[in-house]
Amino acid sequence: MINENCYKLGAEPSVIRSLFAYGLQQAALVGPDKVYDYSLGNPSIPAPAAVNASIMDIISSMDSIQVHGYTMAAGLTDARKAVAEDLERRFGLPVKAEELFFTCGAAPALISVIKALAVGEDSEIMLLAPFFPEYVPFVEQNGAKVVIVPPDTSSFQIALDKLEALLSPRTQAVIVNSPNNPSGVVYSRESLEALAALLERKGAEYGHPIYIIADEPYRELVYDGVEVPFIPCIYKNTVVCYSYSKSLSLPGERIGYVYVPGFARDSRELYTAISGAARIMGHVCPPSLMQLVIGRCAAERPDLAAYDENRRLLYGSLTAMGYECVKPQGAFYLLVKAPGGDSMAFSEKAKLQQNLLLVPADGFGCPGYLRLSYCVAKDMIERSLPAFKALLD
Amino acid sequence: MINENCYKLGAEPSVIRSLFAYGLQQAALVGPDKVYDYSLGNPSIPAPAAVNASIMDIISSMDSIQVHGYTMAAGLTDARKAVAEDLERRFGLPVKAEELFFTCGAAPALISVIKALAVGEDSEIMLLAPFFPEYVPFVEQNGAKVVIVPPDTSSFQIALDKLEALLSPRTQAVIVNSPNNPSGVVYSRESLEALAALLERKGAEYGHPIYIIADEPYRELVYDGVEVPFIPCIYKNTVVCYSYSKSLSLPGERIGYVYVPGFARDSRELYTAISGAARIMGHVCPPSLMQLVIGRCAAERPDLAAYDENRRLLYGSLTAMGYECVKPQGAFYLLVKAPGGDSMAFSEKAKLQQNLLLVPADGFGCPGYLRLSYCVAKDMIERSLPAFKALLD
Repeated sequence: MINENCYKLGAEPSVIRSLFAYGLQQAALVGPDKVYDYSLGNPSIPAPAAVNASIMDIISSMDSIQVHGYTMAAGLTDARKAVAEDLERRFGLPVKAEELFFTCGAAPALISVIKALAVGEDSEIMLLAPFFPEYVPFVEQNGAKVVIVPPDTSSFQIALDKLEALLSPRTQAVIVNSPNNPSGVVYSRESLEALAALLERKGAEYGHPIYIIADEPYRELVYDGVEVPFIPCIYKNTVVCYSYSKSLSLPGERIGYVYVPGFARDSRELYTAISGAARIMGHVCPPSLMQLVIGRCAAERPDLAAYDENRRLLYGSLTAMGYECVKPQGAFYLLVKAPGGDSMAFSEKAKLQQNLLLVPADGFGCPGYLRLSYCVAKDMIERSLPAFKALLD
Repeated sequence: MINENCYKLGAEPSVIRSLFAYGLQQAALVGPDKVYDYSLGNPSIPAPAAVNASIMDIISSMDSIQVHGYTMAAGLTDARKAVAEDLERRFGLPVKAEELFFTCGAAPALISVIKALAVGEDSEIMLLAPFFPEYVPFVEQNGAKVVIVPPDTSSFQIALDKLEALLSPRTQAVIVNSPNNPSGVVYSRESLEALAALLERKGAEYGHPIYIIADEPYRELVYDGVEVPFIPCIYKNTVVCYSYSKSLSLPGERIGYVYVPGFARDSRELYTAISGAARIMGHVCPPSLMQLVIGRCAAERPDLAAYDENRRLLYGSLTAMGYECVKPQGAFYLLVKAPGGDSMAFSEKAKLQQNLLLVPADGFGCPGYLRLSYCVAKDMIERSLPAFKALLD
């Protein structure tokens, strides 16, 4: 008498978590310096100093009832204003506090938007491979169908032809994740403009908007000055889901937001539906102390030097050895073509022979590739290089 | 092309929030000292000193990456151990960390249990009036049907005969909220034992367990030494949903848990299904800093002196005037019979004539009554008494 679907979702082993657990086990056996764990996307740089300084200041100077009390479901007005001003300043768009709905991170943000856009059992949400695997249960378990656009493995930009062929009058939205997990690629302005033009044209043909759901937790994690275009500036029917997990290294604190631009079609109705969806997911408000922190730290940016060093070291070393790697421009992932072509087999071999933990990207809609999270200690990368070498030989 | 159901849920005006907003508006017009707002259940006592001291200590002494990093979905093992030990010590049950699943407060805890127990479209979850109004969308929007047991207005204990008449083979669970919002009543051991015996008998008859979902955010808010029996000690098929919102005055911080006792029927399956349900609601982990705080403060208890003073003052004064009140034993609510019998009309009159904001309990399944939240400043109660008097005259 227990919901079987929920049971399966809870019992499903996660490839990433399993690798991570194996790593801990092996570390106890052979020593942590002989295990090379590239499995988890857990930030390895500390939160900017202003974050902890704000926490200390808020706790020591503000009234406890104010700090820890309920806020409006959408979040504290002042905190939303701070975020709106930061977005406005950076992207030249008029952003208002009432267009922002704070959430407990990106996952519930995405799900509330999915629920709000699932209008019938046949509503479709498109995923562009490679994609974050949790998108699939998020969509399928919240009233819509997943349609997967296969990857363009030549560039890992948007495979526009394949996408066009899969569009239908039932397409409600396309989830766009750039900088991308797992490829590390940033979608170019050109790619996004072409996508916008296509969705504009098809939306007009179908008589309803096709929204872009821009999932942007990695927005601030970008290297070599690569541009990350702000999609609402390119396509008006965009809803942005954001999280401070990566940009402020606060993944455990569960703070992020949905931004529904006033100029998006049916903007207020959509915002209201998102708040209704959040309500039946048990959203009351996002953590209040963290809202106050964001109010003070909305303009803080991460110090990416450590990630960038890792990126150069790993990409440089692996390509020099002969691995075929997708050039990473953002986030903290490197996508590597599995030598031999079978990513599951290569991952298993790397694990068993070298204690090298690489995630097969099959679950990301990209079989034949491996995802490496380089948010790790630099010396682990250095120590792991002989293992990579040995696997190729 | 927006989900109408979500839209309605987002657009629905909340009686409580509307009263609160009216209060703010009137305060600006006539002065805050002439508005008597009994609408919101927002704790008015600060968090125990140990909470903020823990935050300061954690931030200043621990590694930022550890403090703010992802935790397991179920929560940090040490924090769960601390809670398990506290429960075990107080209630004499063996409680293990792996029986606890930390959540972002009681609302998602309840919803994940409801989802896990909704096995078919006709699954029924029983509510005992008076009840927290959000239970209705929580149940109805997450796969089950609501069955309401009318209140026993003579005692506000469990109306067992009415409950029995409404039980069916489709009954999956009964939500039991004690100390009760809005009545302030604590269900007696006798009431709970009678309920347990009935559910045991009916469960055997139907061939499946009928769970009790014990919603216990007010467990620690109890006066005059009244006993709050721990329901798993009385009925084994109990799942406890808890929140630190009221007991540690942390409503904005969103931290609570589900406790699935190992001795409950299908305990591990149910726990797994709850974690699966949480996953598709976007639960990643509860706020990590707050988990660390709970790990240190699991045995902290609130200082109830201020609430108790308010309770005595308000109950004593109103009954002396001639109001018929339910004797409050716990939580921070007083349920008052509406003079004249029409709670909506009386609430409106109190609002317009006296700026006295009382919530009609109709939405709580208890028409003819008004809910007063006495988590307010004592001097507001004192200043409000002439208004209560004037309304009776």
